[in-house]
Amino acid sequence: MAATNIPQDILKDLYAEWDSLMAENPAMSMRMLRSLFDEWHQPTSEPENVTYKEDAVGGVSGIWCLPAGADHSRVLLYTHGGGFAVSSASSHRKLAGHVAKALGVTAFVLDYRRAPEHPHPAQVEDGVAAFEGLVASGVSPDRITTIGDSAGGNLAIAIPLALKEKGGPLPESVIAFSPWLDMENLGQTLSTNNDTDALITPELLEGMIAGVLGESVDPKTPLANPLYADVTGFPRIYINAGSVESLVDNATRFADQATQAGVDVTLSIAENQQHVFPIAAGHSDVADEEIVRISKWYASA
Amino acid sequence: MAATNIPQDILKDLYAEWDSLMAENPAMSMRMLRSLFDEWHQPTSEPENVTYKEDAVGGVSGIWCLPAGADHSRVLLYTHGGGFAVSSASSHRKLAGHVAKALGVTAFVLDYRRAPEHPHPAQVEDGVAAFEGLVASGVSPDRITTIGDSAGGNLAIAIPLALKEKGGPLPESVIAFSPWLDMENLGQTLSTNNDTDALITPELLEGMIAGVLGESVDPKTPLANPLYADVTGFPRIYINAGSVESLVDNATRFADQATQAGVDVTLSIAENQQHVFPIAAGHSDVADEEIVRISKWYASA
Repeated sequence: MAATNIPQDILKDLYAEWDSLMAENPAMSMRMLRSLFDEWHQPTSEPENVTYKEDAVGGVSGIWCLPAGADHSRVLLYTHGGGFAVSSASSHRKLAGHVAKALGVTAFVLDYRRAPEHPHPAQVEDGVAAFEGLVASGVSPDRITTIGDSAGGNLAIAIPLALKEKGGPLPESVIAFSPWLDMENLGQTLSTNNDTDALITPELLEGMIAGVLGESVDPKTPLANPLYADVTGFPRIYINAGSVESLVDNATRFADQATQAGVDVTLSIAENQQHVFPIAAGHSDVADEEIVRISKWYASA
Repeated sequence: MAATNIPQDILKDLYAEWDSLMAENPAMSMRMLRSLFDEWHQPTSEPENVTYKEDAVGGVSGIWCLPAGADHSRVLLYTHGGGFAVSSASSHRKLAGHVAKALGVTAFVLDYRRAPEHPHPAQVEDGVAAFEGLVASGVSPDRITTIGDSAGGNLAIAIPLALKEKGGPLPESVIAFSPWLDMENLGQTLSTNNDTDALITPELLEGMIAGVLGESVDPKTPLANPLYADVTGFPRIYINAGSVESLVDNATRFADQATQAGVDVTLSIAENQQHVFPIAAGHSDVADEEIVRISKWYASA
């Protein structure tokens, strides 16, 4: 199954290369980390028959992904990963394009304000502003899905939590790829999967936590760490993760928490997969099969 | 004219930032330079109504840019800039998309083999292979334009020169944005514009020359340095450059050389513009106006 294994290696190899570059240069500046992590688009193929458009929604810049024949009344509000500090709408354009195309809808990939220049809750505020901007433009809340990966998976969950606090309408559904939720680094798989995860290290997470929370935000704050949130009434959610990644128990813990609160939860743990494995879409059968599963789940509402 | 000036600053500011990062870290690895220079896409907007497709043509990987309604019998064979060593089809996808859309044709952006792992003439060979691959697939040579920027502008000129040596058919036309041709660093504007060019330094060029030519290739080799080429019978060519860039006299010298050889030459020097100024397409009126001029020139054949 070379066609499956070669692309999976592309993602794992890129992560290993980043880790080695960061290890060689522990003082790498945020500026250079941003340059490096914008390479996150490399494992993703160009999805065919998708066009793009720069825009601002609710005052937040981003990129529309517009698959041919998509239902323009439906929107995936995509928040990219990168520890709240790195990566961009550009690095995740192709992934959002693949998902939107499979689901037959549009996606808007946010360039939310990044840490450390803009600590929590700036990222959540931008997501809420974009959601409300979509609604103001005529998109029905029940046709919006918040979706994201890693730190952006956190935001895809935190945005509906913030909307719930405000008493506003919620999105119809939530999709979280390898969400990073645990701002206390309490997860057991952080150590048990440390040798198999090619990207995540406790040190990397500690740096990102310091950047986004600073000195003043409690790491138990529910909108920063949804493992502490009351998720009663939360939209149906699809959560995935790779079995060998350090953050897999962020996904499983939130799935348990939400299930206990009566939320409609679908959990997908992909064997032997790395952090945010769907980002190899178009180059990995495992990623493509996961996106097919998500499209069936999405259509089942 | 804020709408014009702000985007121009985006390109100049990005160049100044790169220069400052390279000055702070003179031993920056080729790996990190590649990360940095893939940011070259940032000044370019996402062109609307263009789709993309990964492919290989003549065995060379790349990205098709497919504007809605484009004439698929016409192809821009795009070679990206970056000193033959850095940048990629990804970093130049949007620029090629803008040009293809304005001209009403398709573009194939090559990921040619890069130096120093692959010294000259690997880049020219890949361009020739892609040209011949297009022809083998049924595209008429007189419907192909070779086009590129900076080192890729060199390749856009060197590919037809190599085809001419082989006695094969030539492209209908050539477009070179701020071509970098002078592998001896003899150009006077390298010093006279040194203070106004935000990106190019003699040291940067020396490093790139050492990478692509190595110890064994004479910098006067015509396929590496087209200023030494016999350009008799060369296709019509559109060459541009910014007036304040260090490489402007690469464009003017080649224009003189080609004009003297009886080639149909259109030279466009844009006042106060930086290296590869069309790469601010969609964010800069000057870039957009230049692309309109090119589309009129293209249609005038």
